[in-house]
Amino acid sequence: MSSTAGQIIRCRAAVAWEAGKPLVIEQVEVSPPQKHEVRLKILYTSLCHTDVYFWEAKGQNPLFPRIYGHEAGGIVESVGEGVVDLKPGDHVLPVFTGECKDCAHCKSEESNMCDLLRINTDRGVMINDGKSRFSINGKPIYHFVGTSTFSEYTVVHVGSVAKINPLAPLDKVCVLSCGISTGLGATLNVAKPPKGSTVAVFGLGAVGLSAAEGARIAGASRIIGVDLNPSRFEEAKRFGVTEFVNPKDHNKPIQEVIAEMTDGGVDRSIECTGNVDAMISAFECTHDGWGVAVLVGVPHKNAVFKTHPMNLLNERTLKGTFFGNYKPRSDLPSVVEKYMNKELEVEKFITHSVPFSEINKAFEYMLKGEGLRCIIHMEE
Amino acid sequence: MSSTAGQIIRCRAAVAWEAGKPLVIEQVEVSPPQKHEVRLKILYTSLCHTDVYFWEAKGQNPLFPRIYGHEAGGIVESVGEGVVDLKPGDHVLPVFTGECKDCAHCKSEESNMCDLLRINTDRGVMINDGKSRFSINGKPIYHFVGTSTFSEYTVVHVGSVAKINPLAPLDKVCVLSCGISTGLGATLNVAKPPKGSTVAVFGLGAVGLSAAEGARIAGASRIIGVDLNPSRFEEAKRFGVTEFVNPKDHNKPIQEVIAEMTDGGVDRSIECTGNVDAMISAFECTHDGWGVAVLVGVPHKNAVFKTHPMNLLNERTLKGTFFGNYKPRSDLPSVVEKYMNKELEVEKFITHSVPFSEINKAFEYMLKGEGLRCIIHMEE
Ligand SMILES: NC(=O)c1ccc[n+]([C@@H]2O[C@H](COP(=O)([O-])OP(=O)(O)OC[C@H]3O[C@@H](n4cnc5c(N)ncnc54)[C@H](O)[C@@H]3O)[C@@H](O)[C@H]2O)c1
Ligand SMILES: NC(=O)c1ccc[n+]([C@@H]2O[C@H](COP(=O)([O-])OP(=O)(O)OC[C@H]3O[C@@H](n4cnc5c(N)ncnc54)[C@H](O)[C@@H]3O)[C@@H](O)[C@H]2O)c1
Ligand SMILES: [Zn+2]
Ligand SMILES: [Zn+2]
Ligand SMILES: [Zn+2]
Ligand SMILES: [Zn+2]
Repeated sequence: MSSTAGQIIRCRAAVAWEAGKPLVIEQVEVSPPQKHEVRLKILYTSLCHTDVYFWEAKGQNPLFPRIYGHEAGGIVESVGEGVVDLKPGDHVLPVFTGECKDCAHCKSEESNMCDLLRINTDRGVMINDGKSRFSINGKPIYHFVGTSTFSEYTVVHVGSVAKINPLAPLDKVCVLSCGISTGLGATLNVAKPPKGSTVAVFGLGAVGLSAAEGARIAGASRIIGVDLNPSRFEEAKRFGVTEFVNPKDHNKPIQEVIAEMTDGGVDRSIECTGNVDAMISAFECTHDGWGVAVLVGVPHKNAVFKTHPMNLLNERTLKGTFFGNYKPRSDLPSVVEKYMNKELEVEKFITHSVPFSEINKAFEYMLKGEGLRCIIHMEE
Repeated sequence: MSSTAGQIIRCRAAVAWEAGKPLVIEQVEVSPPQKHEVRLKILYTSLCHTDVYFWEAKGQNPLFPRIYGHEAGGIVESVGEGVVDLKPGDHVLPVFTGECKDCAHCKSEESNMCDLLRINTDRGVMINDGKSRFSINGKPIYHFVGTSTFSEYTVVHVGSVAKINPLAPLDKVCVLSCGISTGLGATLNVAKPPKGSTVAVFGLGAVGLSAAEGARIAGASRIIGVDLNPSRFEEAKRFGVTEFVNPKDHNKPIQEVIAEMTDGGVDRSIECTGNVDAMISAFECTHDGWGVAVLVGVPHKNAVFKTHPMNLLNERTLKGTFFGNYKPRSDLPSVVEKYMNKELEVEKFITHSVPFSEINKAFEYMLKGEGLRCIIHMEE
């Protein structure tokens, strides 16, 4: 039992008081975990686009003051009532989407979209009592996607915590709790490219590059990277991307360009842009008979996916995935093991690091499109 | 060796001289099979919608005079040069799409869309020499989809012939050479409903009912039939369809009606209508997390499949199939075995039979929407 168990903890957190305004490091009070909750000491957290989107709150529902952050690694400080799977000292990754192990989705082998703990970006409170565990002078500060890792301590539902190998370096594997696993799983769990196959990846951000990393692990013989931004191409080479296509360099649909490059189409295609035209191209550039396209990017509210049904009847498959189809508690530990076995390379995603006090720099890097992942060290 | 091998055979064939005009039983000359061809004695043939569509030639390219027919059972009369897999006397089903065993599709485990012998509705000649094997007074009569089974003898490419168990009754299993296998395979090979699952079938024609038969064989617990024509519902009960939905009886999208009936959506959905709105509903009525929709119906040239990409990101799968993903030579014999084992019921699809001289009656039944399959007996 830690001496803080059952007590309120006072610690530092980076609070977003207003949309788009720099975060402010504040002293916050973090209540003890309630039923089916755990309190985590966060050691490392990294910044993902989703934090930035909701902090900017352009189009997203604004909810402030709020503590963002959902890619992180930490250690269990204390556990609430009814928690049996975790104990103080366990090394964990909190995850923005959970696994209750009890609903139809959790019981299905195919789905990871837990009915109880599926990502909810509008909710700023814990489900147990509809309240926040964070406060400043008695005024609540909202949670974000059930994780709020931009705080030295945070409270999360036990279903949103993956217990991992304690030997894994948390400053590296923390990036596996969102974007990297999403792209990796999209390839390994959903697209499943056979060894020697040709894979197209649309969008070469962190998610797309992790999809390419998945293709490399699966033994793809060609990995074709597609991006509108040519500056992404240099970096992508380190991720095994063998060929590049920029739609801006061609005056015909990019699916036709790719079909010509690949004798009729790629075997697998993974879309990691969020742009619906890229989604359509990603589907239509697959080979008839066996091509599989996987959508990962989150589209605009009013986007419409359109294609001629003949493209489907010609035996193509179109799928989408959420968090790479990984079930956070059941599957994430094995992704960490892939890193421990040196099967998966994680270091190449980590391009920056900053102390917690300089967290706003991480936002600047991302807004400028500089690098892939910036690790924020909670202990300076 | 049959005495007719190498000779021209004179026999009866039902010739379509003009679009939409009754077929005329004529004496035709059938040349011997050339390289990689076989000549078949047809014993039974049945009528499928595709024959009717091309005979009506509304929208389809007209090509006359022509001998239609592609669902049939027969016996090899003689074989051409280079044919090693078949010999005179073999019992066979000719198929409208072939399997060369040599192209990328034939070598892929996933595809049956052979590059060489994939269905071609516009070609009226044999690929070996670009000529017809049928003639009347020296004038060629065109082939249809490489089968032309409305003739006592026909010549087909060896890649379009499935050799089957000689004990199988050809007057029954002949229907397995097109529509029934298409629906059955859409369920068993592509949708693959787990035992106990809920399956929706859109369109309760012969193809949809065979998809339902596949669901019954797979052990589905609920089979929901969807059709605009309520007269289809009575018949469908014999095919294991447990519930019926007529989109005309509801004033909200049918996908919502089905989602309400099934606690969020069906596990599998198979579209057998050819109508693009039904395709969209069939996709959107599947459950998130694990739902799979399979498109079978052949859409209009200008149809556009539209959906919000979120429906895909929520872990649904959309696929299409051609001939139920069966490879004709490799897989059709095992479908016949399913019938021989009494796993698959075929008799219930056969609602009519006529002698060859009355073949136009079969067209009338189909045009009136009466029954499912009419067997045409070549020997009266
Ligand atoms: N499904 C999930 O579970 C999940 C999880 C995390 C992120 N995402 C989504 O994945 C997507 C990628 O995330 P990221 O962090 O890598 O983003 P990112 O912005 O770093 O990368 C996206 C890349 O796509 C490129 N792009 C945009 N439009 C394009 C087009 N039409 N054709 C080709 N390239 C185009 C951009 O130039 C950019 O390089 C986002 O939509 C994000 O919301 C989904
Ligand atoms: N993919 C393939 O390999 C393949 C092979 C054979 C047939 N087909 C296609 O399969 C389809 C079905 O063939 P069939 O012979 O059973 O046809 P059919 O005409 O006998 O049956 C189609 C049924 O669909 C119903 N229907 C039409 N629009 C509908 C809608 N919007 N909602 C609900 N029901 C609707 C009709 O009332 C009819 O009962 C056709 O499009 C045919 O071309 C495809
Ligand atoms: Zn659950
Ligand atoms: Zn993220
Ligand atoms: Zn082939
Ligand atoms: Zn047919």
